[in-house]
Amino acid sequence: MELNWVEYIGLTAGTLTTAAYLPQVYKTWRTKAVGDISLTMYTSMTLGILLWLVYGIFIKAPAVIAANSVSLALVGGMLRLKIVYGRREKAARKLRQGQ
Amino acid sequence: MELNWVEYIGLTAGTLTTAAYLPQVYKTWRTKAVGDISLTMYTSMTLGILLWLVYGIFIKAPAVIAANSVSLALVGGMLRLKIVYGRREKAARKLRQGQ
Repeated sequence: MELNWVEYIGLTAGTLTTAAYLPQVYKTWRTKAVGDISLTMYTSMTLGILLWLVYGIFIKAPAVIAANSVSLALVGGMLRLKIVYGRREKAARKLRQGQ
Repeated sequence: MELNWVEYIGLTAGTLTTAAYLPQVYKTWRTKAVGDISLTMYTSMTLGILLWLVYGIFIKAPAVIAANSVSLALVGGMLRLKIVYGRREKAARKLRQGQ
């Protein structure tokens, strides 16, 4: 294959865009602060990555399946953290306001 | 093409994962609060999406090129917002601490 190095670009791209979620998950898990994070972003991203995974299974593309399985776990995890910590922040805010 | 509906799954997936950044960019632009956002995530994501774009150009895949061009603009925009507002937050914190 003459253009095999092109596939290395794709692999590097997939590694970077998947691994990107790791520092965000770690930061959020550590600080438990999610006020600046968009719930709509992580909902749409989780659904989209789930569909990429389904697409990868249908077209039998191992790289698409692998990258999106890992991404789904990380982005789904962020969605969960946003919902759980978001509820806590809201409850704490109400308590402070004496509602 | 028998499996054309599979391509619709891919298109829907790409639309969702690209559009996902819009509400985050809007929220950040509106609140100017970036404390909970990971700089490492948006740096890695911007580099990764840039490489996906290069990959798409090499394999001549219009869907990959289109989705990643839009994503690059949005994620690159978020990276810029994180850096600019992050600096402002840091400066404001130092002022409050009288340093």
